Amino acid sequence: MGSIITLTTDFGTSDSYVAAMKGAILKRNPEVSIIDLSHDIPQGDILEGAYFLASTIPYFPADTIHVAVIDPGVGTDRNAVITQIAGQTVVHPDNGLLTLLTEEFEVEQANVIANAKFMHRHISPTFHGRDIFAPTAATLAAGTPPEEAGPPVDTLETISLPIPVMEKNKLVGSVVHIDRFGNAITNIRASQMESYTRPVIHVSSNSFDVIHTTYGEVAKGKPLVLVGSTNRIEISVNKGHAADRLSIFVGEKIFVEDAAS
Amino acid sequence: MGSIITLTTDFGTSDSYVAAMKGAILKRNPEVSIIDLSHDIPQGDILEGAYFLASTIPYFPADTIHVAVIDPGVGTDRNAVITQIAGQTVVHPDNGLLTLLTEEFEVEQANVIANAKFMHRHISPTFHGRDIFAPTAATLAAGTPPEEAGPPVDTLETISLPIPVMEKNKLVGSVVHIDRFGNAITNIRASQMESYTRPVIHVSSNSFDVIHTTYGEVAKGKPLVLVGSTNRIEISVNKGHAADRLSIFVGEKIFVEDAAS
Amino acid sequence: MGSIITLTTDFGTSDSYVAAMKGAILKRNPEVSIIDLSHDIPQGDILEGAYFLASTIPYFPADTIHVAVIDPGVGTDRNAVITQIAGQTVVHPDNGLLTLLTEEFEVEQANVIANAKFMHRHISPTFHGRDIFAPTAATLAAGTPPEEAGPPVDTLETISLPIPVMEKNKLVGSVVHIDRFGNAITNIRASQMESYTRPVIHVSSNSFDVIHTTYGEVAKGKPLVLVGSTNRIEISVNKGHAADRLSIFVGEKIFVEDAAS
Repeated sequence: MGSIITLTTDFGTSDSYVAAMKGAILKRNPEVSIIDLSHDIPQGDILEGAYFLASTIPYFPADTIHVAVIDPGVGTDRNAVITQIAGQTVVHPDNGLLTLLTEEFEVEQANVIANAKFMHRHISPTFHGRDIFAPTAATLAAGTPPEEAGPPVDTLETISLPIPVMEKNKLVGSVVHIDRFGNAITNIRASQMESYTRPVIHVSSNSFDVIHTTYGEVAKGKPLVLVGSTNRIEISVNKGHAADRLSIFVGEKIFVEDAAS
Repeated sequence: MGSIITLTTDFGTSDSYVAAMKGAILKRNPEVSIIDLSHDIPQGDILEGAYFLASTIPYFPADTIHVAVIDPGVGTDRNAVITQIAGQTVVHPDNGLLTLLTEEFEVEQANVIANAKFMHRHISPTFHGRDIFAPTAATLAAGTPPEEAGPPVDTLETISLPIPVMEKNKLVGSVVHIDRFGNAITNIRASQMESYTRPVIHVSSNSFDVIHTTYGEVAKGKPLVLVGSTNRIEISVNKGHAADRLSIFVGEKIFVEDAAS
Repeated sequence: MGSIITLTTDFGTSDSYVAAMKGAILKRNPEVSIIDLSHDIPQGDILEGAYFLASTIPYFPADTIHVAVIDPGVGTDRNAVITQIAGQTVVHPDNGLLTLLTEEFEVEQANVIANAKFMHRHISPTFHGRDIFAPTAATLAAGTPPEEAGPPVDTLETISLPIPVMEKNKLVGSVVHIDRFGNAITNIRASQMESYTRPVIHVSSNSFDVIHTTYGEVAKGKPLVLVGSTNRIEISVNKGHAADRLSIFVGEKIFVEDAAS
């Protein structure tokens, strides 16, 4: 087990929740290095959390311990788990947060967190981030094996993801995330378009027959389609906010057809 | 003295202030580990800062050094101080920031920061965070004892806190913080209600006769009362924003009576 | 080369971009200490980035490595460079981000990042932060000299800065930044006013004939002029938001005349 612990939450930083989690980690294990990934996941949005983790965890070194707390069901009967995946460890509520990651990587092992040794002495029913997930991460970082936490989990919970489908001869995907710059990121992977000779993309009354490489290839303020940094099709505007300019929202349909066929 | 330095400010992170403080710490002592607690305390809001510190500092390990700069009186005659409390050290303007913490923990020692050795060579009258508090924390982390900073402070400044009172046979408290999720956190501690046989809670035209344990015990969108993660009474809505839904603001009165009496 | 790497971006933290950069750094070099400076630089605003870096980098210790990614031209023919300045190293797109810093410090050396060894195996044309700048910083932190990255750069790109000018007998400057507190920071340095016997400052229909030292010297809610923490003239309101109160925007002209002349 490594000594890097990352944090991903929907807690924001104006409240004391993230700070208390950091204290709970350091109190158990002052030697770890805490790395903030994001505390701005939309509140209770497991799907956004799943996309976030799938876009970040693969870039981290082996043995990194990630704490991911988007946990609208805190205190109910959902499990708290330790999952080993992609050579790393994720400590998280078993509510589907790893759905997207498990599409690309095999779950090596998953254990329920049941052993009180991995938890704070008193457990608030509404703040497992501080009282279960943070102490568990610190305990793992100190070398305690995840098997000691509790029994293995056979299958992690998943959430249903919007998946591109073929309708007639069109590939129909959807926008799954609007980033800070207004780029509309879809669920269509670049690899799904390799067979297209002359792809034409339709979204929100706009059509695109070129897949560009970077923003600066079109004039300032002009929309374009490109393969984004997570290898998905994105709709962008050079130095502009595509989602606002083209009135695109999360869930917006995107259609791909092959003009050559 | 440990080598963990935490930062709590109302500076936000779009300006260069927090970054300059981090530089000032590392320039004196590149070995320390800097932990961001929050830079989103409402501007100049000493009361919010006091609640934040009381909710976080107790979770940190002994010997942690905390720098807390919510300092609307910067450059006036308020003191800059080093306070030892709860086995830890807080470097802060003496303006009441520790009021809530000192209700639970005894001040072990407090010293004015007067010795220029603890400060930057040039001191901006408007930015003691960078020029006094940050270098002081780094100096303490390097092992210099707080006594060298300056004379002891007999009594720290305090601010007046809204405190629950008995009116007739009702306990009257108030909402002291709305968190990011819309939970309305009050100043009534769970321990203050232990003597109630059948507590009934009234807030903003709503009445609650059950104190729940967690959000999921009521239907989605329904309001509830529970004991929050800092052991205070909270008003929440399951998967909703209680403050918006029930029109609750900071300062809103909350009334507790015993239906059994 | 030191082992502190700082990050300054316009990425925000609700997307996965900053997190992926942190992973990319740690995967190459898990020993480095990552320090967030800001991820809230206004999007694509090289001028704000330049002010930010000039206000922070000088406070860091020698050998710090700074990664600064405000990069609206990502993927175009602008260079990615390593610049050594002020005894430190900055990894950044060569788009003018260091313009202000180079007014105060000499560029010791600058190298294009051309060697694939400094980059990720696959390079997204839209995310050089993750695939070029982050791995370069980690490579430098591991001791690889910048000369190995690529050929020297003779002259870094610069952007035009608003510079104070003399018009008749008035010094005409402008507001270059509004901070979180509403302070309006100008491009007039304190040193430029040393020759004024009785300076009078005009901005947005307000006149000031005293340069104060700190906010608390005027009544609550009253405007004032002072020398800010970066030694520039600032317009403030004690415990208020000067920019809102006085309707001051970035670009607003400020006039200084000498009432004694």
